[in-house]
Amino acid sequence: MRVFPLDKVFQLLEPGPVVLLATSRNGRDNVMTMSWHMMMDFMPPRIACVVSEGDYSFRALRDTRECVLAIPTADMAALVTDIGNCSGADRDKFREFGIGRGKAAKVRVPLIEGCVANIECRVTDDALVERYDLFVLEGVAAWADEAWPELESTAVPRRLPRTLHHNGDGTFRTDGEFIDQKARMVKFPEFL
Amino acid sequence: MRVFPLDKVFQLLEPGPVVLLATSRNGRDNVMTMSWHMMMDFMPPRIACVVSEGDYSFRALRDTRECVLAIPTADMAALVTDIGNCSGADRDKFREFGIGRGKAAKVRVPLIEGCVANIECRVTDDALVERYDLFVLEGVAAWADEAWPELESTAVPRRLPRTLHHNGDGTFRTDGEFIDQKARMVKFPEFL
Repeated sequence: MRVFPLDKVFQLLEPGPVVLLATSRNGRDNVMTMSWHMMMDFMPPRIACVVSEGDYSFRALRDTRECVLAIPTADMAALVTDIGNCSGADRDKFREFGIGRGKAAKVRVPLIEGCVANIECRVTDDALVERYDLFVLEGVAAWADEAWPELESTAVPRRLPRTLHHNGDGTFRTDGEFIDQKARMVKFPEFL
Repeated sequence: MRVFPLDKVFQLLEPGPVVLLATSRNGRDNVMTMSWHMMMDFMPPRIACVVSEGDYSFRALRDTRECVLAIPTADMAALVTDIGNCSGADRDKFREFGIGRGKAAKVRVPLIEGCVANIECRVTDDALVERYDLFVLEGVAAWADEAWPELESTAVPRRLPRTLHHNGDGTFRTDGEFIDQKARMVKFPEFL
């Protein structure tokens, strides 16, 4: 994996892909599937996510205040579903599913190999955790898979990976047609 | 438009589509484009979104505590971009862009015609508005366009509209291939 610029992280999450959330607590790595996340700020990249108190990852995220968000590709749909349909309370998902682990730079949580990108995050605000299970994260390092050299390019069209968008019922849509409306972006020239 | 069940609203937003956010303040309707939103809870449908204090819609949302979230179709990409690249401070976007208005049931904000679905929302928590421009919304009524009779079907494959996912730079991806992993959804049988 190669370094991915933090100021481009919002472009990874703004399209709304399913992500994998990795945590590590007491020497045990775990991973869950998550679609309830959004960008909150560009730089440093601030991200909100909802991790239910019923999820095994909740306590790891709350206690260690660290995680990795990884964006799987469309061909990982079966794995992504299986990861979301069992609990780390009674199994080692990394081992059972044969998920490759990479070394993170700033958090003690593994990166997930084979994903489009990985974002190392720290919890920076837990004010809404008790009420809504809502965590505020800050991206502190990011990595892109070597397979996607154009990921942070400003060219049009960019060669972008197909990711997954969860319809909420075990069905997904992948990314389809690329539509370029850059010429109409008069308000935000810094993104062109 | 026909009534859309509130307990299915999460299936509209969980895939991460671009939405239009309509507000109305002092008799002036306005609309902006937004991608920074996420589901927070199923029922009643709770939604988080970030509306920057610099956006003209911010004050309307903060003061009236009401809005409509509408999900545009892929063929509305140019309009969606244009709406996001001008300010309601100096123009009437509904009139200038010829956007059709429908009558909402529970909020004093217009529905947006031609969209896949409209969700009437109230602001239920503004604890993080000052710090992050983050609003917590609750969906109080929802509507689907007659063109999408299968939107809340549980059949596989469903005929789903192509929506827009913003890459953050004026380019979009539309929804592509439908992937069915329902058979692997052992943890959440209530969604099958």
